[in-house]
Amino acid sequence: MTVQEALEQFRSTVKNAHALQHAMGVLSYDAMTVAPADSAEGRGETLSYLSGLFYEQMTGPALKEAAAVLRENKEQLTPLQRREIEMFDRDNEYLSAIPAEEYVAYTALLNEADAVWHKAKAESDYASFCPLVQKIFDANRRFAGYYRPELDPYDVQLDQYEKGLTKERTDAFFSALREKIVPLLHRVMERPQVDDSFVKGFFPIEKQREFSDWLMQVETIDRNRCSIGETEHPFTTGFNKKDVRITTHYHTDEVLDSMFSVIHEGGHALYELHSGDELEGTLLSGGCSMSIHESQSRLFENLIARSRPFMKVLLPKLRELFPEQMAGVTEEMLYRAVNRAEPSLIRTEADELTYSLHVMIRYEIEKALFAGEITAEDLPRVWNEKYKEYLGVDVPDDRRGVLQDSHWSGGNVGYFPSYALGSAYGVQILETMKRDVDVDACVGAGDLAPIAAWLEEHLWKYGQTMDPLELLEKCCGAPFDPAYYTDYLEKKYSEIYGL
Amino acid sequence: MTVQEALEQFRSTVKNAHALQHAMGVLSYDAMTVAPADSAEGRGETLSYLSGLFYEQMTGPALKEAAAVLRENKEQLTPLQRREIEMFDRDNEYLSAIPAEEYVAYTALLNEADAVWHKAKAESDYASFCPLVQKIFDANRRFAGYYRPELDPYDVQLDQYEKGLTKERTDAFFSALREKIVPLLHRVMERPQVDDSFVKGFFPIEKQREFSDWLMQVETIDRNRCSIGETEHPFTTGFNKKDVRITTHYHTDEVLDSMFSVIHEGGHALYELHSGDELEGTLLSGGCSMSIHESQSRLFENLIARSRPFMKVLLPKLRELFPEQMAGVTEEMLYRAVNRAEPSLIRTEADELTYSLHVMIRYEIEKALFAGEITAEDLPRVWNEKYKEYLGVDVPDDRRGVLQDSHWSGGNVGYFPSYALGSAYGVQILETMKRDVDVDACVGAGDLAPIAAWLEEHLWKYGQTMDPLELLEKCCGAPFDPAYYTDYLEKKYSEIYGL
Repeated sequence: MTVQEALEQFRSTVKNAHALQHAMGVLSYDAMTVAPADSAEGRGETLSYLSGLFYEQMTGPALKEAAAVLRENKEQLTPLQRREIEMFDRDNEYLSAIPAEEYVAYTALLNEADAVWHKAKAESDYASFCPLVQKIFDANRRFAGYYRPELDPYDVQLDQYEKGLTKERTDAFFSALREKIVPLLHRVMERPQVDDSFVKGFFPIEKQREFSDWLMQVETIDRNRCSIGETEHPFTTGFNKKDVRITTHYHTDEVLDSMFSVIHEGGHALYELHSGDELEGTLLSGGCSMSIHESQSRLFENLIARSRPFMKVLLPKLRELFPEQMAGVTEEMLYRAVNRAEPSLIRTEADELTYSLHVMIRYEIEKALFAGEITAEDLPRVWNEKYKEYLGVDVPDDRRGVLQDSHWSGGNVGYFPSYALGSAYGVQILETMKRDVDVDACVGAGDLAPIAAWLEEHLWKYGQTMDPLELLEKCCGAPFDPAYYTDYLEKKYSEIYGL
Repeated sequence: MTVQEALEQFRSTVKNAHALQHAMGVLSYDAMTVAPADSAEGRGETLSYLSGLFYEQMTGPALKEAAAVLRENKEQLTPLQRREIEMFDRDNEYLSAIPAEEYVAYTALLNEADAVWHKAKAESDYASFCPLVQKIFDANRRFAGYYRPELDPYDVQLDQYEKGLTKERTDAFFSALREKIVPLLHRVMERPQVDDSFVKGFFPIEKQREFSDWLMQVETIDRNRCSIGETEHPFTTGFNKKDVRITTHYHTDEVLDSMFSVIHEGGHALYELHSGDELEGTLLSGGCSMSIHESQSRLFENLIARSRPFMKVLLPKLRELFPEQMAGVTEEMLYRAVNRAEPSLIRTEADELTYSLHVMIRYEIEKALFAGEITAEDLPRVWNEKYKEYLGVDVPDDRRGVLQDSHWSGGNVGYFPSYALGSAYGVQILETMKRDVDVDACVGAGDLAPIAAWLEEHLWKYGQTMDPLELLEKCCGAPFDPAYYTDYLEKKYSEIYGL
């Protein structure tokens, strides 16, 4: 096989694998947005079949042979091609280590778990979900063992979402956060609470949908390439640069939850929509890692949409859509309301200050489950204990406790640290951006295009051509430093709560 | 290969083919409901790849070998298994006659055509759609020639949707209709028109969505197995007995259009949802033919929802949802309004009397295109001429003319006669049902369960185990007789318009 033939073989097999991923992705998106409740069984069979075909394509002899030829002739490849082979080797080594039938069974398991989790959450019935969550954790631990029996399986798991991430690094990061955040939160809690009563009340879904459209427009999202759907748990998925989907969840009794979901998922979408053109269809398109992905979603959600200048843009729109609720509300009142810090039950609704504590709880539970220190049966008890310990709140039911997130039912085990890391990356990225862009002026004018353009130029366009810390350093001109994040929180909340 | 092995091989290959159809079906449904406008290209590539795999499964040696063994050992098969082999042979002969690359290219063409048609309709821009409609007709004519070079290609096409249907039979049927309907319509048009002003006005989409949910409930549709979406053109699709989707299109300026779409598509859905359990996963599940399918949708839409007893159920709900518009409206006024007969532009909004004329126009155009008497370039002119001739209306633009239906962009060429045939079958089926069920009493009480149960018992459960005319005769205990339909129209409209 010549290098040219190998390249063509590689390209066409990757294209076939993408087609299968696309089909599976749309089946899953459909399942979570609009499919009838009883449709899981037939979809499970279809997903099993497609995942078997995907496994065949990605681990089959055609692609391996082509990759071997390319690996042996690296000097004839472009840097992008070399990077792609490297990425293929990583993914392929993990995938090939899993027996085909286990891979297919795992796909079917996730499809079942999604349906069961939806019902379990609605009915606050953890017992029905418990055996599935155990199976999902077991499968992930087994897969990690097949792939790197010499490593700690949870380290393998973390590395899947964030190349190079380990328990050691995560522990150190969370320890640095905890040291700053916990005393800061205690000081905040001693101060009088800010008023956010005007964001509660009755907010009709139709008006909230209109609000979402406006938010996506302000965020510079091209609606011809990105749609919005409604799901139990908000998420973003993308099939290619011209087909990205975000979702939200509307609550009629308040307005901020969906608003921040839309902006958060919109940040993910922007990253996917602006991946480099030359990477499209290769293994290098899309986001670099989940932490870098979360850095973008959290940047838009918190650093932009929870900033003081954004209130100049937000308040007039809220007044237009919800004139009664917003009567008498000033920009300052709104700014304080959207930044109200308070220990609470739900991660996605948490303020910036307590957010990382929610993430730490999940991280510690995953670690303990992977280490065999606890089983799925212990989850509600451990969850509730940790919420009491870290946040001082009593969890009234599993719906608002261990069943709140869709990550475990979706097989995203080891994902959670990405949220906290991403929040920290985001602050460092924004501080860097401020050297080139007058961020406050842009945000205050409701013109986010210069911000998006900077991110595209310094981050989005690179796709997966670098590992996360390498990309972050290239973007920021300095290595990752969590102090940017803790300093930001300290300054922001000291000012709001007059510490 | 033993018969048992052949059966297993057959079953597993059909299952794989179903999985691929399921994935393609969901991709198409997603495209028409929620996908972003610019997403067609990536989806086209994925659909092409999947359709190639489908073609391989259905025409590959594994299935053919198994089918040959089963064909040679028919005496060892159950009647259902024999029927399934027979159906496989039919489909396979057609599919195998098409070269694989043409089949794949045709799938990509339909994906492109769907996107182009949506834009073309919105902008009333036939020119952009014209080359695609020509390609679609050309491909269908070519496929018919590959399959049965000795037959008229449009006869082949009609037979694809309705086994045994020919131009000769369709011409005779339409001629019988025209003979009765045209003079009847002329007499109606001489009479004072009924008032339907109260169904026009402003009907908020949110309220109409609530109305749709109620209509589906009245129609006895299991919402855990059937969802509703919103599309440019209403349709029904089903992936298995537990996953059926209907769609509608809301217009805020009137209330009947979406209402009858929901009931019509709901009739299709009921048929799919109640296919025999033992047929699930075989080639015999789902609807017998498109005409039988339309007989069910048109039966619910017209014979039930446009009947006088249904007004007892409908009016209170309309009053509840739209109290202002329905103030002072009586059951009799509503009955007359929903049955207002009038030559018009849009097929899906047409009354029962003029409906078949809309269908005849499309049938004649398809015949002429297939015969090469006209080309796609002639379509708008011919369309508008025929609307003037048959219905006496001037078509103001192609959006309300030749671009109104999604059938041609979807490759459904030869489908239209099914609507008229189905309308006629439906009347004969309902007349038969009336021997066993007090239809008027059930409809007047809003209890459609006995009607659904009768249809399941006499029609739905049989799936594709019989050919359409055979099934109709079994259901009705007599051969098809279009006089049921023309007599019904004569009686109904004479009474409404006092002829």
